Amino acid sequence: MSEIILASASPRRKELLLLAGIDFVVKVADVDEVIDPSLTPDGVVMSLAKQKAQAVASENPDSLVIGADTVVVLDGKILGKPKSEENAVELLTMLSGRVHTVYTGVALIKGETVKTFCEATQVEFYPLTDEEIKAYVATKEPMDKAGAYGIQGKGCILIRKIDGDYFNVVGLPVSAVYRELRDFDV
Amino acid sequence: MSEIILASASPRRKELLLLAGIDFVVKVADVDEVIDPSLTPDGVVMSLAKQKAQAVASENPDSLVIGADTVVVLDGKILGKPKSEENAVELLTMLSGRVHTVYTGVALIKGETVKTFCEATQVEFYPLTDEEIKAYVATKEPMDKAGAYGIQGKGCILIRKIDGDYFNVVGLPVSAVYRELRDFDV
Repeated sequence: MSEIILASASPRRKELLLLAGIDFVVKVADVDEVIDPSLTPDGVVMSLAKQKAQAVASENPDSLVIGADTVVVLDGKILGKPKSEENAVELLTMLSGRVHTVYTGVALIKGETVKTFCEATQVEFYPLTDEEIKAYVATKEPMDKAGAYGIQGKGCILIRKIDGDYFNVVGLPVSAVYRELRDFDV
Repeated sequence: MSEIILASASPRRKELLLLAGIDFVVKVADVDEVIDPSLTPDGVVMSLAKQKAQAVASENPDSLVIGADTVVVLDGKILGKPKSEENAVELLTMLSGRVHTVYTGVALIKGETVKTFCEATQVEFYPLTDEEIKAYVATKEPMDKAGAYGIQGKGCILIRKIDGDYFNVVGLPVSAVYRELRDFDV
């Protein structure tokens, strides 16, 4: 069996692969993320996941490399990480009381073999008061997260329900990854 | 504001309340759990949650006491904790490839005031092979868990998707509890 490399610096993705009992190492390469504006959200995350995996795979041709990218999409528009605390308040105000979709794209690459897939999970926020939003932003938790929240952290109290894979919202659809790895030629 | 008491020995429930930033202490009383066979699953979990909370509230009349009970229901039948490793294999074989429902009942009690509610989350399992089930049971993780799995542990790889509150499957719908506590007369 090949060495498995996670091409992501995300501590949350690392934690999820560990939870699934997968043996791996982390190696991250700098990628100038190129987004084709004609792509739909699932196309964007699969493309970025592939770029991240390929940057590591080119240096490690005998390893199986996992790349991933997660975005939050509301009304067809990708919400990125907040640029400031004010922007975090804006993003959370947009999400309040509404359903959005979290897409995580995954790329598995070994040598010339490339497999990409995407998982989508619907997330419904409670209607939030301005005070709740400000209190949450004051925790700083939103600042490094797509859509300005972490479902696995203090952000848990913002969310009424989800439809899909929970771990996909955290940043990696670990169950699907586990199954694809098992079926991949490793 | 009253002292808040969690009337549950579950480390997972404790962890979820901490995540939500709620200040509380844990006090557990022995309860002879009495199940009225005429009740539906949501009635059963609310009744057991109330019994657990009341046993602690009677000794702590000035505190707000939280009780909770979680069951896994397939085809209208409550699946308990496995009695043996063989029983864990049987339960997981029943859940394989199917959708079941996790009910958590919650009771909030302060003095004479009692509020109970229930959250239901649908959980879809991947079709599992006998080898997968045996390997999971060998981790011992299923042994202390309703339905013989933990979604927040190695059991994450068994599950395709959920519909509802994720934390409800872990054992406490922490977001709903947070909101009910805020609105409760504490």
